[in-house]
Amino acid sequence: MNTREQHIMRDLHQRLDLCSINTATLGHREPIGRVIDRVADAGFGGIAPWRRDLEGEDVSAIARRIEARGLTVTGYCRSTYLPAATREQFARNIADNKAALHDAATLGARCFVMVVGGMPDGSRDIEGARAQVSDGIGALLDTARELRVPLALEPLHPMYAADRSVINTVAQALHLCEAIDPGSSGFLGIAVDAYHCWWDPALADSVAAAGRAGRLLAFHVCDWLRDTRDMLLDRGMMGDGVIDLRALRRCVEDAGYDGLVEVEIFSQANWWRREAVEILGTCAHRLQAVC
Amino acid sequence: MNTREQHIMRDLHQRLDLCSINTATLGHREPIGRVIDRVADAGFGGIAPWRRDLEGEDVSAIARRIEARGLTVTGYCRSTYLPAATREQFARNIADNKAALHDAATLGARCFVMVVGGMPDGSRDIEGARAQVSDGIGALLDTARELRVPLALEPLHPMYAADRSVINTVAQALHLCEAIDPGSSGFLGIAVDAYHCWWDPALADSVAAAGRAGRLLAFHVCDWLRDTRDMLLDRGMMGDGVIDLRALRRCVEDAGYDGLVEVEIFSQANWWRREAVEILGTCAHRLQAVC
Repeated sequence: MNTREQHIMRDLHQRLDLCSINTATLGHREPIGRVIDRVADAGFGGIAPWRRDLEGEDVSAIARRIEARGLTVTGYCRSTYLPAATREQFARNIADNKAALHDAATLGARCFVMVVGGMPDGSRDIEGARAQVSDGIGALLDTARELRVPLALEPLHPMYAADRSVINTVAQALHLCEAIDPGSSGFLGIAVDAYHCWWDPALADSVAAAGRAGRLLAFHVCDWLRDTRDMLLDRGMMGDGVIDLRALRRCVEDAGYDGLVEVEIFSQANWWRREAVEILGTCAHRLQAVC
Repeated sequence: MNTREQHIMRDLHQRLDLCSINTATLGHREPIGRVIDRVADAGFGGIAPWRRDLEGEDVSAIARRIEARGLTVTGYCRSTYLPAATREQFARNIADNKAALHDAATLGARCFVMVVGGMPDGSRDIEGARAQVSDGIGALLDTARELRVPLALEPLHPMYAADRSVINTVAQALHLCEAIDPGSSGFLGIAVDAYHCWWDPALADSVAAAGRAGRLLAFHVCDWLRDTRDMLLDRGMMGDGVIDLRALRRCVEDAGYDGLVEVEIFSQANWWRREAVEILGTCAHRLQAVC
């Protein structure tokens, strides 16, 4: 059993092998094959591709390429939103996610990142949407277990509660995990993203509880810019915002997380306008300097 | 003692006397005297002015005018932010708030609305800012008690945690109230604003607990637009967004809240471009139709 002493925070200095790049960080501007090479060439130990990266590609070939470059797939992004206005649409959403889980398995992904979806258009029933999410995850868990790909529920910042995710805190995600998978099968857990969770006064307690339950499946970093200009595409590079990322990583690692630290930055007006080499170099520097 | 039976939700139909207008809803475009008349003429029972409305005005004269029109002052907006980079600035923030509390008392305000402030510029220490907020509220409570003006902590949406408020949930605000004022003096409580709190999975429990503690001092409504364009100034009119406002009012009134329902809408690109008469008429209609 893990003891507290075993969870001394890792030193990321010269350890980019402990770090992963989510492909969104580069803005989805190049073919996935090129991105795999760039990430590996820069010395990172992992990559987290999106479904859009694999459109029109041979998933098995991509998986081989990732493996050949020695990269861990820290997560596969991301689920089709679950809540729907009709039963038929809900069923299609489940089917879409099952198909994506097969690709996640092919890629050898450490988890399938579940951004669960907001409220259906025109709805004012957030609790109803949350109930659909619970049903949907329940419907996917068997497939996840069969394919050996854990589902990682990613609580999204409350500013996305209407349109992207009705799961908004780690505590809420953990509560859902315990309700759906009380025996902790190992195939249902949580992705903790600094951007979404940093503000939460209950975060330290929630992360510790998630760790005790063996539910910490991923850890994403970027920064919250004080003067955020866009609610979706203005995330900051680590060190450029207000989040104490080292304290947060300590919290997550103290709770037992021993996976990679994944950088996920959406930045239309800044980083996505820069060269991939510059983005990756800055990520590497900042991971070691401030995370 | 209140029993649950006494808390049957009020019917707002033909009861605009139970409703209040926060002057921000009209965009601060006219002198406060004119706004008082407009709000009273439209049949509302209350008004919540901002400090900026009173700049250069005789506060006692404004207070007499509000009273003459039969309006309740449901809140006085709002506190100077508390967290500061230096002790001197912190002391000035406290002094500013004490001065504002005197004006709140002159106005006969039901509460002084505390938007507590974010992290000082350049800081990454949200817990430090929260500690300063706690100290600051403690420093103001005696003045509030002497002046008989309750402090209403308003938890702000987590998207404002960096720059406007490090208090972000009702549960957190209640915890702070209990720590600072364990005997429940009656001069420290909470303002529940639909816009800030609607997403919170713990909201019903938190509001019930705040009600049991006698801490519910104000209830603000507007709506969260699914396609929010601006993080500060794009609040929706009740009924135009995703919040189940009637369910939320039921929750607040079930918890014992018996004050007025206050409309507070910041809407630079929409409502603030319309005539005051249209805004007030729409508020009146929507309060009765959807709240």
